[in-house]
Amino acid sequence: MFRTLGRAVFGVLALALPASADTVSNFTLDNGMQVVVIEDHRAPVVTHMVWYKIGRADEAPGHSGIAHFFEHLMFKGTKEVPSGAFSAIVEQQGGNDNAFTTEDYTAFFQRVAADRLDLMMKMEADRMVNLNMSEEDVTTERQVILEERGQRTDSDPGSLLSEQMSAAQFLNHPYGIPVIGWRDEIAGLSRDDALAFYHAYYAPNNAILVVAGDVDPQKVLAMAKAHYGPLPPSDKIKPRHRPAEPPQLAERRMVLADERVAQPYLVRSYLAPERNAGDQKQAAALAVLADLLGGTGTTSVLARALQFDSQVAVYASAAYDGVSVDPQTFSLVLVPSEGVSLGDAEAAMDKVIAKFMQDGVNPDELARLKTQIRANEIYARDDAGGLANTYGEALAVGLTVQDVQDWPEVLQSVTAEDVMAAAKLVLNRDHAVTGWLTTKEAAQ
Amino acid sequence: MFRTLGRAVFGVLALALPASADTVSNFTLDNGMQVVVIEDHRAPVVTHMVWYKIGRADEAPGHSGIAHFFEHLMFKGTKEVPSGAFSAIVEQQGGNDNAFTTEDYTAFFQRVAADRLDLMMKMEADRMVNLNMSEEDVTTERQVILEERGQRTDSDPGSLLSEQMSAAQFLNHPYGIPVIGWRDEIAGLSRDDALAFYHAYYAPNNAILVVAGDVDPQKVLAMAKAHYGPLPPSDKIKPRHRPAEPPQLAERRMVLADERVAQPYLVRSYLAPERNAGDQKQAAALAVLADLLGGTGTTSVLARALQFDSQVAVYASAAYDGVSVDPQTFSLVLVPSEGVSLGDAEAAMDKVIAKFMQDGVNPDELARLKTQIRANEIYARDDAGGLANTYGEALAVGLTVQDVQDWPEVLQSVTAEDVMAAAKLVLNRDHAVTGWLTTKEAAQ
Repeated sequence: MFRTLGRAVFGVLALALPASADTVSNFTLDNGMQVVVIEDHRAPVVTHMVWYKIGRADEAPGHSGIAHFFEHLMFKGTKEVPSGAFSAIVEQQGGNDNAFTTEDYTAFFQRVAADRLDLMMKMEADRMVNLNMSEEDVTTERQVILEERGQRTDSDPGSLLSEQMSAAQFLNHPYGIPVIGWRDEIAGLSRDDALAFYHAYYAPNNAILVVAGDVDPQKVLAMAKAHYGPLPPSDKIKPRHRPAEPPQLAERRMVLADERVAQPYLVRSYLAPERNAGDQKQAAALAVLADLLGGTGTTSVLARALQFDSQVAVYASAAYDGVSVDPQTFSLVLVPSEGVSLGDAEAAMDKVIAKFMQDGVNPDELARLKTQIRANEIYARDDAGGLANTYGEALAVGLTVQDVQDWPEVLQSVTAEDVMAAAKLVLNRDHAVTGWLTTKEAAQ
Repeated sequence: MFRTLGRAVFGVLALALPASADTVSNFTLDNGMQVVVIEDHRAPVVTHMVWYKIGRADEAPGHSGIAHFFEHLMFKGTKEVPSGAFSAIVEQQGGNDNAFTTEDYTAFFQRVAADRLDLMMKMEADRMVNLNMSEEDVTTERQVILEERGQRTDSDPGSLLSEQMSAAQFLNHPYGIPVIGWRDEIAGLSRDDALAFYHAYYAPNNAILVVAGDVDPQKVLAMAKAHYGPLPPSDKIKPRHRPAEPPQLAERRMVLADERVAQPYLVRSYLAPERNAGDQKQAAALAVLADLLGGTGTTSVLARALQFDSQVAVYASAAYDGVSVDPQTFSLVLVPSEGVSLGDAEAAMDKVIAKFMQDGVNPDELARLKTQIRANEIYARDDAGGLANTYGEALAVGLTVQDVQDWPEVLQSVTAEDVMAAAKLVLNRDHAVTGWLTTKEAAQ
């Protein structure tokens, strides 16, 4: 398959664009590996990413954390690149590299001078199939991850609340389990588990190659064929059907009281649909809703009412991401002002939301927001590394290059009615979890 | 293996017993099937049960309800016994039969005249391996179960609350998912799913035969060898290691408001350890705690304080079962008096619990309760069918015949200190879910 998708996404506006990352090519190798190339010739650098369509939510029950664990193990050695040498080589070449894991994918990337792309592909293809892991590698890395969990989660009350809230948000779907894994399950992960996971899921037909920067798409394709083309596909790759949510009938509420909390706050998360291939309208309405209600800046509905008018809060925000395989969350965060209780702050927040549901969207605000969204999209196109991320992430959750390119126009087409319909669907407390983080037991 | 375990469980008290079910024999067939025989010669009847160590919590994610679904399908036909004929034959023989499924097991039983035991074994062994299921059988039964769910769960707000609370109680363990299954997952169960489940888990090495009544253990053993002995074991039977709970750090609260609610009430469930083979002391302390706090009758701590002294409630109870593979719940139910809000009733309940934690166990009450427990155990021994259930259930969750026989003495050995230690461990609201069932949104 071969497609080159040009600019012209933004119509006339695009004419005003600076020279930028603007050409996206899209291939599939014979072994099933997807390839996306984003050209940006302004600097002689390249971002090379490989995304695996395997994440936390694809793990077997009782083995939470293995996707993230394996992200770490991918830095162990092969015959060609000894244990720990991968990142050192990238650095020696003047580049940097890293990796990340979410519920839906695991990704590896390097940013290097454009003429080092061949080496990056060679090394990445090598560790896709040739990884060696000694029992000691596994033991050591497991300890590293337990310490990572200790630092990032167990010693941070906010992270703990977030984890407990996710578990209460999802009654059936595996998104309820943390990406890093439950401590006892991390401790139980073995080399056999890791090897089985590697052989099943690290394969070209489960991977997406994204290359962004000062490259020629045909040369990238030839290079990808040379390095990734010979790798055999896995027969374990199946469509991702995770257990779905049953009807959620009652809000879950929790208070996490911890002496380490310096600043109390509350989080409300609602179950929300995700972007789907060829069907992004509802998600776009939710993205607009999040921006209107509590986007960055100080002009959002929640910030104006709670931070400025009533001064009940020092911070109010709403967030919705949309990029996931299955339904996710739409969330609100509220940090009360000194002397305002979490209960009063929450009541004030719910009053603002109720008023918004009654008043509807202010057309001027919607128009201003759309202009801002358009500007942000244009700025985003100026960052080839960021675009690599956008395309990789989208493809890893089942969206297409076309969906990514349609997204700005889908956002622009959102009407006030769409926003209110989405708000009515999603801002239903029966589908919500509300968590309070506090220094001491808060009164009910 | 052959063991006969006599009476003498109750020491001197046993001397005062009427003629009763008092001799338990215990065998294992060569194919791994456990056999328990309970003699009771007072009436020429027999209870024949087969317990499979497969329940809701052993199902694959996304296939909830298949264990219960399969319980239904076991009444479809074999070559010898056509579809629907099983229960009809039992009835023609003057008996009755039924089956049930829980998180941990699926059991089938018949109660018939003692001379029909051979026929029951023949039929039960037949359907353990020879079941035929047409596509139509599966389709029909799936519809029956969807209607069962509609009647038992979806049209009953109390059942819905219980289901939503369980999902919030267990952050990781599969006990959070209802035995009958989530509606959409029931609807997705196929004949292939059912056949795979049958061939993996319906096998003698995953089954326990319990026969109670007017029988001779050696004759039962010979009969079991003849009928069940030839059946091949399954190689899919593994120890049951389900995902465990991570630390629970914050109480989950929910309010389910439904117009169909006639009588508001509240439920508090706490995560609680289960009885374990050779280690039943903590569970016994919890069983005593449940009886002390809110056992049947009107002398419990909660009933006295809330129903009689303050008259805040018309009903208050505590329940703990203890018989499960993995940790389960200790739960409280409170039905407020007319005019008392759920919030006030809950506050009163928590005050009573706090006072109990401070005052400790009243020694006279503990002594009275132990006498009552002992009497109940003795009465229970008078019911051979009930004993069959007790042994079958215990063995199905990994307890032994010895554990069942030790249980009365373990209960008697519980001290006031044991009870308070168990209370301190379990009555921790961070590990709890509190649900309110109400006609309308209750104020916080």
